[in-house]
Parts: sequence; structure tokens; C-alpha cells
Amino acid sequence: MGFINKILFSKSRSHEDGIFFSDLKKILGFDPINTDYYKKAFTHRSSNKLDEKGNPINYERLEFLGDAMLGSVIAAHLFSKAPGGDEGYLTKMRSKIVSREHLNELGRDLNLAKFIESKIPLAHFGENIHGNVFEALIGAIYLDRGYLFCEKFIHTRVIIPYVDIAKLEGKVISYKSLLIEWCQKEKKHFHYDVFEDNALDGQRLYGVKLSINGKVIAKARATSKKKAEEKASQRAYFAFQEKINRK
Amino acid sequence: MGFINKILFSKSRSHEDGIFFSDLKKILGFDPINTDYYKKAFTHRSSNKLDEKGNPINYERLEFLGDAMLGSVIAAHLFSKAPGGDEGYLTKMRSKIVSREHLNELGRDLNLAKFIESKIPLAHFGENIHGNVFEALIGAIYLDRGYLFCEKFIHTRVIIPYVDIAKLEGKVISYKSLLIEWCQKEKKHFHYDVFEDNALDGQRLYGVKLSINGKVIAKARATSKKKAEEKASQRAYFAFQEKINRK
Repeated sequence: MGFINKILFSKSRSHEDGIFFSDLKKILGFDPINTDYYKKAFTHRSSNKLDEKGNPINYERLEFLGDAMLGSVIAAHLFSKAPGGDEGYLTKMRSKIVSREHLNELGRDLNLAKFIESKIPLAHFGENIHGNVFEALIGAIYLDRGYLFCEKFIHTRVIIPYVDIAKLEGKVISYKSLLIEWCQKEKKHFHYDVFEDNALDGQRLYGVKLSINGKVIAKARATSKKKAEEKASQRAYFAFQEKINRK
Repeated sequence: MGFINKILFSKSRSHEDGIFFSDLKKILGFDPINTDYYKKAFTHRSSNKLDEKGNPINYERLEFLGDAMLGSVIAAHLFSKAPGGDEGYLTKMRSKIVSREHLNELGRDLNLAKFIESKIPLAHFGENIHGNVFEALIGAIYLDRGYLFCEKFIHTRVIIPYVDIAKLEGKVISYKSLLIEWCQKEKKHFHYDVFEDNALDGQRLYGVKLSINGKVIAKARATSKKKAEEKASQRAYFAFQEKINRK
């Protein structure tokens, strides 16, 4: 509604909103209904915005909500995927998944920082801003589309690409070494190339692609070359696992 | 399915299951589909039960799941009911609602202890058993009927009867004193009567009814007369508030 109103009443705002809407849709994987929730999820308290009742408009309350939704979706996932794990195990695994460091990585990977509205330059924020707005985004999804959309988003953006129980348990130390081992056994040539080396708001980002027998198999971005290589290896490893299973 | 199988294959079990099903239905407010989840929610580890894969059957994992669901439903409720509260306020209010003491009270009020299957006599358990099985029950509801049923159950059994933001904030000290004040102002006669005084598994329970102008207005059970009077007063206060608003 807010979005439609703005299209009707403001030409310049409608263009901006249109870009926000389409960028957001790519991240969400579905159409947002009320973009106001998402705008709030990217508004830093330094903006000093207030609603008509005098309550501050910023992402902090949404962070609380998103954190709770993330906690319950991850709990349900672990419950079903680790049928032999006791209460202590499940609690420990969840803490690893929703760790501050991991949430920051998730927010950074989706490049959520570009949406942030703030009076303080982004470079002045610490790492936690990425995780904070990621949690706030989940809170906004809950308000806009309800629990089931929230659950689906967490599956697509958190669980499928990042939650690997074997790795969390420390059973897999490095996907890069698993992949190299596999390539050697299968007599395949592989190499890692840096295809991107950016600095965004003082934060350096490396993009690495992994090719096997001359074909690009996986790409990944991270804050160090080593991390990007590991992430690309993990993606390739899972892609190959599927191929192996299909044979 | 488990329930239907048992009806078909075992006459004596079917009678037991029938009682469990109907008692459970009263507490849930809806038909359970798979009663096996609920049986697990009331099975203590001392039963030493294992499933076909050798995983223990008891309520501990369900407790983890129920705790997460309770956390997210309460978070969403507080978010909408306290639009002026910041993240710190919301976190603090949620902690009060899901405090161990409060969960024990909820489990005790529903008399969940009577369902517990254990090799240890109930009298040997501490107070926490009530809250633990209450959380496990929520986990079972999630598995059996999904998030929305879980949310509805928490609204009916936790939020409506117990979550009063004013009281949690310490703004209302005692509903009994508010009610007495109101009766005196409105020139109404009131009295509290104990209608029940039971000991269940070493736990004493008092039932108190509150009458105003000779008519029973509210009943409540608790572990002390004082607590039961306070609870009955709260119920009466809210019932009257509605009447006052309707005028």
C-alpha cells in the first residue's frame, strides 16, 4: 500500500522505490507487499526518523523479531536433520549457525549494506551492521508475508547455502582439501582464479572462481581469498555430490 | 496414523489412547493428528525408551523445539503490542514471560503432570518438570500441526490468560487490590471462597472462586490461596473491563 501510494503521489520517489523494489525482490525471491517494513529494516537510528506517534523508525526492533524467527526456523531444521542429537547438541549447533560472525557473513554476502539509510558513513560502522540488518530483514519478511515466507527465505538464504551439519560438527575441516583430493583421484585439472577484488565502504571483498577441466564450476565472494576459495570449494563439492549420486 | 493403528490392533491400548486423545484435545483446543508426538512430549528419560534407530524417546529434544517456538510467538506478540518498546525492553519482557517460574506455573495449571510416563515417582521431580513438559507439548504441536496451530495454542494458553504487559512492567502490583477498590467504589459486595484443596503428587493446589453480589465471577487454581485469589481477581478484572468498555 505504502509503495502504491508513493507511485501515485510522487514521481521521483516512485523511480527510487521501483529500484528498491526490484533489488529487494531479487534478494527475497518473492514480491514484497508492503515495502515500508523493508525500508525500516535498512534505516539506522542515526536517521532520527519518527512515526506519527513519535516512535523511532529504525531497524532495532525488527532485529529482535528477526532474531526470534531465525532461532525458531533453525531449531526446527536441526530438530529434523539431527534426529540423534540431544538438547545440548541442538543448542550448540544453533548457536554456531546464528553466531554474530555468521550473521555478518550472510548480510555481507547479500550486500545488504547498500540499502542502509544512515547519517553516519557506512565505513564508520563495525562488522555487526551486516548481521543486524540481515536479522531486521527477516523481521520485515515476517511482518510483510508471515511465518511461512520467513521460513522459506531462511531455507534459501541460510540453510541451503551455509548450514552443513558435518562442517559445523567439525567433521569436515576444509572443503578445498576434500575437493583437491577428489580431483586428484578422478584425474581432473582444477584451478582457482580471483575475478574480483573490490573495496566497498572500507571492506575488501574477493571474488574467486573455481574451474575444473577448464569449466567454471563455482564462484564465491568473501573477505579473504582463502575464505572465498573455501566457499567456492564447498559449492562445487555439493554440486558434484549430486552428480555422483545421479550416476 | 499411530493412533489409528493402535485402535485397530490393540483393544486395551485403544481404550487408553482414547482417554489420552480426549484429555489432550481439551487442553489443545483442536484434534491432534499424530498422538505419538504428544506421547513423546510426556515421556521422561527414565523410561529408557528407544526408537527403531536406537535414538532415545523422551521429551528433551521437543523441549528445545517448543522453547524456540514459544520464543518467536511471544516476540511477535510483544512486537505488535508494545510499539514504543525498544529492543532491550522487548527482550526483557520476553524473558519475564518465558521465565522458568512462569513456564512451571503454566504446566501446573494445565495439570500436564498427570500424563507423564516415568520410572521415577513424580513427587521426586522438582518444580521444573511442569515447565519442561509444557515446552515439549508446544514442540509436539509444531510437529503435528505446524507453526500456525502452535501460535494459536500459545495465544489461547499463554498470552490471553497470562500475558499482561502492564503487570509485567510492574505498573499493576495486585489485581486483588484493584478489584477491591473498584467494588468499594461501585458499592458491590464481594467474597473469595476456597472450593478445592487438593494434594496431587505432593503438590498442594487451591481452587478459589470470587463472587460479586452473590454471583460467581471467576475461578482460579494455584499453589497458594493468595496466588489463586490474585489470579481469580485478574480474570474478574479483565471480564469487568470488557463490560465497562461495552457501556
